[in-house]
Amino acid sequence: MGSQKWAYEDLTAGTSISLGSKLVTAEEVIEFASEFDFQPMHLDEEAGNASILGGLSASGWHTCCMFMRMLCDGFLLDSTSQGSPGIEYAKWKKPVLAGDVLTGQCTVVDKRTSSSRAGLGFVKIRSELYNQRGEQVFELENTAMFLTREAAR
Amino acid sequence: MGSQKWAYEDLTAGTSISLGSKLVTAEEVIEFASEFDFQPMHLDEEAGNASILGGLSASGWHTCCMFMRMLCDGFLLDSTSQGSPGIEYAKWKKPVLAGDVLTGQCTVVDKRTSSSRAGLGFVKIRSELYNQRGEQVFELENTAMFLTREAAR
Repeated sequence: MGSQKWAYEDLTAGTSISLGSKLVTAEEVIEFASEFDFQPMHLDEEAGNASILGGLSASGWHTCCMFMRMLCDGFLLDSTSQGSPGIEYAKWKKPVLAGDVLTGQCTVVDKRTSSSRAGLGFVKIRSELYNQRGEQVFELENTAMFLTREAAR
Repeated sequence: MGSQKWAYEDLTAGTSISLGSKLVTAEEVIEFASEFDFQPMHLDEEAGNASILGGLSASGWHTCCMFMRMLCDGFLLDSTSQGSPGIEYAKWKKPVLAGDVLTGQCTVVDKRTSSSRAGLGFVKIRSELYNQRGEQVFELENTAMFLTREAAR
């Protein structure tokens, strides 16, 4: 380690990182739902149209997972990340439908060093995803752990 | 619809529903991580052992998804569920390692009818997963929407 771009020191309140974009395909929506969330509105276009979601819509958990992949690609894999103890909150603000293109960003809200583990810090991050119409579809706040540059050497 | 076991009326504070059990396999942990969260501790046993998680560990999002599958099987697919606007909080309390067997339950915390949509109600649910040693590994609180029995007819 030690050569990563983002260590604990680099993440301060207001630091904002743009994530790439992600096309949501019907195949992926159905595949995910078949494994983890097989409610009709996530499996079938007609059932989706008939639901309050208004179309073949990704499971909210699928949106979380697509976000996580975008976060890995755009940030975490080039960081000293040590995982996360949990999620402060997540909001599925609008349906994510097959054919949507998601973009997003994450912004550091707060940080503190661990009192029990030298070289480790907790960083609270707010993340957002938008669709191709600029509508916010997802908001997440969670705390992630990062090593200091020194500890990651 | 209309024949489901669980409609809005059936869910009251204290209602508790047991979920089945789920063996977490190394193959699933690696497959999920390869698609959504390819941090080393979720992909490789050695890297997992070297991390603070202490073994090949499921992505926290994978734990969420395995939970969602258990919730579908044990509850939601026999309900008038209309999805969820979000997550109040989630806690990954202990690592979920390959080979673990998860069991769980969900408990209704609170409920209210929608002020804007007749026949729809919001139910706040607290869910927990435990491993084979009885240790709590996951806790989630979220709000889900359910139709009344009448509206689901």
